[in-house]
Amino acid sequence: MTETAVIAGVGPGLGESLARRFLDEGCRVGLFARSESYLEELSAELGESALAVPTDITDPTAVEAGFEAVRAEFGPIDVLLNHASGGAWEGVQDISPTAFERAWRVSAYGGLLCSQAAIPDMLEGDGGTIIFTGATSAVRGRDGAVGFSAAKFAVRGMAESMARELGPKGIHVAHVVIDGQISPPEGTAETDRAEEEFLDPDSIADSYWHLVTQDRSSWTLELDLRPHVEPF
Amino acid sequence: MTETAVIAGVGPGLGESLARRFLDEGCRVGLFARSESYLEELSAELGESALAVPTDITDPTAVEAGFEAVRAEFGPIDVLLNHASGGAWEGVQDISPTAFERAWRVSAYGGLLCSQAAIPDMLEGDGGTIIFTGATSAVRGRDGAVGFSAAKFAVRGMAESMARELGPKGIHVAHVVIDGQISPPEGTAETDRAEEEFLDPDSIADSYWHLVTQDRSSWTLELDLRPHVEPF
Amino acid sequence: MTETAVIAGVGPGLGESLARRFLDEGCRVGLFARSESYLEELSAELGESALAVPTDITDPTAVEAGFEAVRAEFGPIDVLLNHASGGAWEGVQDISPTAFERAWRVSAYGGLLCSQAAIPDMLEGDGGTIIFTGATSAVRGRDGAVGFSAAKFAVRGMAESMARELGPKGIHVAHVVIDGQISPPEGTAETDRAEEEFLDPDSIADSYWHLVTQDRSSWTLELDLRPHVEPF
Amino acid sequence: MTETAVIAGVGPGLGESLARRFLDEGCRVGLFARSESYLEELSAELGESALAVPTDITDPTAVEAGFEAVRAEFGPIDVLLNHASGGAWEGVQDISPTAFERAWRVSAYGGLLCSQAAIPDMLEGDGGTIIFTGATSAVRGRDGAVGFSAAKFAVRGMAESMARELGPKGIHVAHVVIDGQISPPEGTAETDRAEEEFLDPDSIADSYWHLVTQDRSSWTLELDLRPHVEPF
Repeated sequence: MTETAVIAGVGPGLGESLARRFLDEGCRVGLFARSESYLEELSAELGESALAVPTDITDPTAVEAGFEAVRAEFGPIDVLLNHASGGAWEGVQDISPTAFERAWRVSAYGGLLCSQAAIPDMLEGDGGTIIFTGATSAVRGRDGAVGFSAAKFAVRGMAESMARELGPKGIHVAHVVIDGQISPPEGTAETDRAEEEFLDPDSIADSYWHLVTQDRSSWTLELDLRPHVEPF
Repeated sequence: MTETAVIAGVGPGLGESLARRFLDEGCRVGLFARSESYLEELSAELGESALAVPTDITDPTAVEAGFEAVRAEFGPIDVLLNHASGGAWEGVQDISPTAFERAWRVSAYGGLLCSQAAIPDMLEGDGGTIIFTGATSAVRGRDGAVGFSAAKFAVRGMAESMARELGPKGIHVAHVVIDGQISPPEGTAETDRAEEEFLDPDSIADSYWHLVTQDRSSWTLELDLRPHVEPF
Repeated sequence: MTETAVIAGVGPGLGESLARRFLDEGCRVGLFARSESYLEELSAELGESALAVPTDITDPTAVEAGFEAVRAEFGPIDVLLNHASGGAWEGVQDISPTAFERAWRVSAYGGLLCSQAAIPDMLEGDGGTIIFTGATSAVRGRDGAVGFSAAKFAVRGMAESMARELGPKGIHVAHVVIDGQISPPEGTAETDRAEEEFLDPDSIADSYWHLVTQDRSSWTLELDLRPHVEPF
Repeated sequence: MTETAVIAGVGPGLGESLARRFLDEGCRVGLFARSESYLEELSAELGESALAVPTDITDPTAVEAGFEAVRAEFGPIDVLLNHASGGAWEGVQDISPTAFERAWRVSAYGGLLCSQAAIPDMLEGDGGTIIFTGATSAVRGRDGAVGFSAAKFAVRGMAESMARELGPKGIHVAHVVIDGQISPPEGTAETDRAEEEFLDPDSIADSYWHLVTQDRSSWTLELDLRPHVEPF
């Protein structure tokens, strides 16, 4: 397959692993993130099939321009990975309304904007795939993380609604529940935890790619991923 | 019990039934809604233990002022019903980002603001109860209602997170999944549907009141409510 | 209401609390358990509106006879509490197939037999209520309790299926998820745990009774109950 | 990988597709079913890496013997697909206790017996994979199918419990929710439904195989599969 994918919310870690994996499979990949310098460095490293598009995914105009830039370079969008996520790991007494809003805006509102920009290409073409990166807090509201929980639940609700609406039109919408901590990029963190307690981002990328390759007769809406030792 | 309750998002239908039921049980009730004329008429009808407080629950300053007004009249808040809800019954290709945001702002963001205003009273006092009004779209993202689904999921995630955080501190947080259509107030709608296909708002109010009376040794986080004939 | 209730699987603890509560509300109560001596003592204590019926609920003939005995004394059955539960707290490598089967037979198979015996009375009469006692292991398969988890899941699946089938026919089917440990009867256990860490069976009974009183316009299929300090 | 897999409950349709797919990937496959003639024909067709083992999976002795036969031919078991399923598509008023039990015995009890036989090989070796075939009725109790729902819920509860227990020991337990109807084998059924309304069993097999290949840093407990046009 030579597909054009957009990864909205690339960063060191899973975002980069997804980019590398999709490139390895022959895709051309548009990378959205806010930091211009990080993106340029990354795309230089990834080669000609990767396009850095500094984009604030919470700004409708910027999102439209970002997709236009990818389209101009690689053609219509086939795959969208809504991968951006906002922190907001505070309890209800501590979180500011602004931080609560920010978590939602980056993951839910940004996910809507990117999806709305990508869907027309998919409908005109041969269908497509939209994958949302979720978390355990999308299925169990977490003590002390009211903003993150509300945002991740919102994303899951959006993904389910879109799956029901778009499936019959040939667009596969999926939601991946990542349960546990992803290995920090080498050299970025010291940790006492054993390696096997982390999710390997390259392994996560295997399951994202599997979702993209699923035949439309057997599509998955949701799967969970966790290290084999993770208590849950 | 003589408790002070705030109902955030009162309107004809369930909001009014909740107000009447809580008043019948001896509570004093602060009523928040945007329409001043509607609220004044309602509180006049409900009597001295009801206080109309025209409030935009998406505005932090207005919310603070609203709670202050109730406190001044009736004392510290014991019960908060986060009952406001925004429509957004459109599919992902049709909904405007503004409508998507509005649905979230009224139910999730407004729910946060009201909760943050009420919690300190409950912690200083003898505990309290916060109930969120949910919907089927809080547990199953609905085809063609991406904004409503994302907003209602967000509320459920927030409720779960808050229940885990606040339960040990003596605040009971609950989420009611209303599955089906509530009887329209008399004279407001013509319908071909049989009466038994609707939820009676007075009956719903019974279960809200049950949640308030639960002993802290046996609290419910979530219950669903539907007409006996509702297919689900 | 003067209703006739059957509590299938009475024992010290919640079963007894349910019996007392339903009697206090004016019901006549048939008590099923295997131990004849325990039941006789209990019913003597509870008075004339309680009938002890030693019954093996996993035996179709015994179940029929048990219901017949209650009917003969108190008239047709209005309420059935499927409250029996089998242990099986072992992991998959340790549990014997016999213990695995026993857990299912007591809770799922016995629940079917009792429901099938009670339903005709409810259909001929004015409807009725069937409540299944569930547990956290009915919604999250528990590490090291494969038999208990499989049995409790089975019960929940049965309750959901029956709720959908019987609701439109006027029978309210509900499933109560009890999350945490119920206070041991006085004098039966020493414990280091604080009292507030336990569910009070009388408080649980409040919510069972609430389910029985719900108007058919607003029925609950499932609610959870836990102590306010329970981590979950 | 040259793995030894057992498919418990092979039949025309998904069972056969799983067998072919696992053989294509280089596995040796033991096939369990009750019908000797069907199995012999199938294994003749599949070649030397397939072994027909007529087995009643609800009989502990037969299950032990079946695994012993596979072990003798192909070595220790690495993968177990618990694929057997019993019908029981009747409502609570119509189903016989025997049919209710049969559905549970084939899927839940048989799944336990096969898992208990396979686990020691996996623990002594390099880990393994156990996959349970589930259905929508494992997550939503279906109106008019109380036996099937109870059995499928039981399987899901067992799978979750086993995943938590066995994951840290290196055994990957997964549960696949098949939502919709699988294409009938060619020539076996006439249907008015369009081909795209069915799940293609070969496509389902892709996701089973993906589960087997997942790295232990990112294991999936549950995924759902449905045709893109399936309403859900």
